[in-house]
Amino acid sequence: MTENTIRIGIYPGSFDPLTYGHLNIIERAAKLFDRLVISIAVNNTKTPLFTPEERAAQIRHVIGGDSRIEVDYFSGLLVEYARRKGACAILRGLRAVSDFDYEFQMAHMNHKIGPEIETVFMMTGEDHFYVSSRLVKEVASLGGDVTGLVPDNVFVDLCKKYAALQKGVQK
Amino acid sequence: MTENTIRIGIYPGSFDPLTYGHLNIIERAAKLFDRLVISIAVNNTKTPLFTPEERAAQIRHVIGGDSRIEVDYFSGLLVEYARRKGACAILRGLRAVSDFDYEFQMAHMNHKIGPEIETVFMMTGEDHFYVSSRLVKEVASLGGDVTGLVPDNVFVDLCKKYAALQKGVQK
Amino acid sequence: MTENTIRIGIYPGSFDPLTYGHLNIIERAAKLFDRLVISIAVNNTKTPLFTPEERAAQIRHVIGGDSRIEVDYFSGLLVEYARRKGACAILRGLRAVSDFDYEFQMAHMNHKIGPEIETVFMMTGEDHFYVSSRLVKEVASLGGDVTGLVPDNVFVDLCKKYAALQKGVQK
Amino acid sequence: MTENTIRIGIYPGSFDPLTYGHLNIIERAAKLFDRLVISIAVNNTKTPLFTPEERAAQIRHVIGGDSRIEVDYFSGLLVEYARRKGACAILRGLRAVSDFDYEFQMAHMNHKIGPEIETVFMMTGEDHFYVSSRLVKEVASLGGDVTGLVPDNVFVDLCKKYAALQKGVQK
Amino acid sequence: MTENTIRIGIYPGSFDPLTYGHLNIIERAAKLFDRLVISIAVNNTKTPLFTPEERAAQIRHVIGGDSRIEVDYFSGLLVEYARRKGACAILRGLRAVSDFDYEFQMAHMNHKIGPEIETVFMMTGEDHFYVSSRLVKEVASLGGDVTGLVPDNVFVDLCKKYAALQKGVQK
Amino acid sequence: MTENTIRIGIYPGSFDPLTYGHLNIIERAAKLFDRLVISIAVNNTKTPLFTPEERAAQIRHVIGGDSRIEVDYFSGLLVEYARRKGACAILRGLRAVSDFDYEFQMAHMNHKIGPEIETVFMMTGEDHFYVSSRLVKEVASLGGDVTGLVPDNVFVDLCKKYAALQKGVQK
Repeated sequence: MTENTIRIGIYPGSFDPLTYGHLNIIERAAKLFDRLVISIAVNNTKTPLFTPEERAAQIRHVIGGDSRIEVDYFSGLLVEYARRKGACAILRGLRAVSDFDYEFQMAHMNHKIGPEIETVFMMTGEDHFYVSSRLVKEVASLGGDVTGLVPDNVFVDLCKKYAALQKGVQK
Repeated sequence: MTENTIRIGIYPGSFDPLTYGHLNIIERAAKLFDRLVISIAVNNTKTPLFTPEERAAQIRHVIGGDSRIEVDYFSGLLVEYARRKGACAILRGLRAVSDFDYEFQMAHMNHKIGPEIETVFMMTGEDHFYVSSRLVKEVASLGGDVTGLVPDNVFVDLCKKYAALQKGVQK
Repeated sequence: MTENTIRIGIYPGSFDPLTYGHLNIIERAAKLFDRLVISIAVNNTKTPLFTPEERAAQIRHVIGGDSRIEVDYFSGLLVEYARRKGACAILRGLRAVSDFDYEFQMAHMNHKIGPEIETVFMMTGEDHFYVSSRLVKEVASLGGDVTGLVPDNVFVDLCKKYAALQKGVQK
Repeated sequence: MTENTIRIGIYPGSFDPLTYGHLNIIERAAKLFDRLVISIAVNNTKTPLFTPEERAAQIRHVIGGDSRIEVDYFSGLLVEYARRKGACAILRGLRAVSDFDYEFQMAHMNHKIGPEIETVFMMTGEDHFYVSSRLVKEVASLGGDVTGLVPDNVFVDLCKKYAALQKGVQK
Repeated sequence: MTENTIRIGIYPGSFDPLTYGHLNIIERAAKLFDRLVISIAVNNTKTPLFTPEERAAQIRHVIGGDSRIEVDYFSGLLVEYARRKGACAILRGLRAVSDFDYEFQMAHMNHKIGPEIETVFMMTGEDHFYVSSRLVKEVASLGGDVTGLVPDNVFVDLCKKYAALQKGVQK
Repeated sequence: MTENTIRIGIYPGSFDPLTYGHLNIIERAAKLFDRLVISIAVNNTKTPLFTPEERAAQIRHVIGGDSRIEVDYFSGLLVEYARRKGACAILRGLRAVSDFDYEFQMAHMNHKIGPEIETVFMMTGEDHFYVSSRLVKEVASLGGDVTGLVPDNVFVDLCKKYAALQKGVQK
């Protein structure tokens, strides 16, 4: 604990796509760290709706030119990635009690692998605690209105993506 | 988010008495903040085993001369206390899922009262997640051995306190 | 299930005091029943902040002249009270997972005692899920601002009540 | 809240197949609404054991000629379907605490999309709270006896279906 | 693990009063141990409805002359009591998820104090999972019918006890 | 409950692979039964990392020559398998609250199918409660160090398996 240390926090996730729930955590976490790295999971096994590059563009568009927030990608072990970035903490949002057990297990496993990196949690803001990327995609794919759940640029991207998918199906 | 801000975290609790579970959180939290204030709740309604002064002495003994950690008292609204201390965050340990709902409610309530102060959570370390002050007192009061659950000075204090209470009962 | 049956729902609680969380349930429940009875628990063992009469006045002030909503008192077995009122259902708000187990037990117990009366649940609205009467009183008693958590008349009543209690203490 | 309104409730689900747990909810819900629509989810992505038509036939056989209960199909957004049917409420059964978080999220999401349609919950009856369609199929597929968990006609259908699947595998 | 060891299980509790939920656990546990000790907690701080002797009589009446089941009292540390009785295991019933965290903490604490004594859990039977002594007393004290929740002799005892209390109040 | 009965316990699971969490349960369960059968689920639908034979070899290597512990395979209904083995109990480890609901449902379903066979639960030891086979594989597949989570022979097997898979991918 030295006062002139630069403290870096990692906020990892799929962000497929970014929701107002994520954004709420990002804005509040930015007060806690000198530098915040939003780290997009590049996972070969899952089939995301948006490419990592599309997701990075969505986040950068919303975050704007804040030089203290970095948008990055990661694959492999999160703890080793955090170590390479010089981070002191991994940040996770908790939405509901069902998140708890998995996060609890992961936090302990990560502590075993990298005891110098802490996992800290924040509760998702009251307006967005029921908003998950999965649910947003489910509603949007059925033609439901997700305004108010995702930033405007993400909303436009979702409309385009599902319109394209629909077209593909109709051919 | 300015790099030269001094970030102060508040770790509030009853600490009646300090356990290794608390200590584990304190040591890990010290990496996240420039200054950590351990804030002993001075609550008129509950009847604690140790006086606030005894509890402060127990903590100071263990923490030693680390000038970046302050031991303090608080009463009244936690958020207003945090504001007066210039803190950016309130730190809470999560031991188990049953802590979750209460902490969830408190975090949202505190956010409503003081939106500039964040609540962050850390999971209690794997060796101490089942250790609570309440359970330690219950076991110690029945003559059980709580070595390994509390620091040595707290262990001695517990023995003395229950011996004195026992004597009082026998008279 | 006859179409011309008048369906009466009972919404029981302490309402000590009424919060916006309760009000949200009341407004939404009013769409589901022909008549809604808000039933204030008159419990000899607990020591409430407001008398049953004060609580009834608070609710009536907010509900206004809606002739389909009745404010009433009850003591004894809820199911027998519901039977006497000719109700088909007891309505309960669910705020969080910690409410679940108790409500689950009570619903099954009530079903055993009065199988013809159903218990139905509604989730408290997103803006109020962390608001409980207990937490409102705790914050208000410490001088915290509970505007936005309770209706204005309840806010005034809380201020008066705690001012009077404060005076009593100072004497 | 007008007394002569016809109140319609929607009970949506996969019903793949109907269990005594569902039937318990249906019978109890029928007391709460003037008309109850059992709405079979027609979902392209999952591969059900029974076709929607088979499931509807199973339900109709058990429900019999009760003209106030309708068996219907739906796809797309549940809230928009409920709107088209003129329903005031979506009914969901809660079996266990693990159902809670998902239902909580869905209820809030549905409230955002269609605030005029309420979601109400009932606890599954004590004799059937551990009975799910998934578990019934798992046990039946392994040759276990599911009498007492599903109505007789569903029991016969399950036997036939798994016998046919078995035959297909053996060829 | 020697085949000719006599295995003794302890089933501790308040049993204030014995319910069919307890009885269900006792009957099923009797298959797992050579000897089962039902251990009534004699706790100075709580004020029970029935004296330890009344509770023992209620249990003995129901258990009858089964020489392998012992009814006993304990105070102090459960683990040390179990040790004195030569038990290999402490048996606990789990009714609901809300029991879990407390039992989890206690099991770990007991394992620390007496690692040679195991804690094993059984789920309360489906007909009784919502039945707790506390709820039975609450319903009985309000004049509700608790037949089917407690054995007949306990039912009679509850009626007598509350009639006597009622008389005491009226004087 | 006859004293000279041989009591057999079944500990079923995938054990893909065996972890120190499993081993902790096995060692503690061995005190409770005269004979313990570790039963490897042979499930056609899931694609395990290790074959049932590899998993059996891993377990036998660690268990050694203890003649009272048997390593076996099972498929089909667990309760019927337990019956064939002459077991009185199925043993399950509980790691976290998220295990609870599924285990609760399964225990009740199994009780319906085979009421003479009891399900008993033990809490996974404090050092291993966050260790699951799934998480071990996830970490090992990403090159993380799982020493301390699995026995040495399993550690070697994991390294070989992932090296072979890696080679297969690179070709």
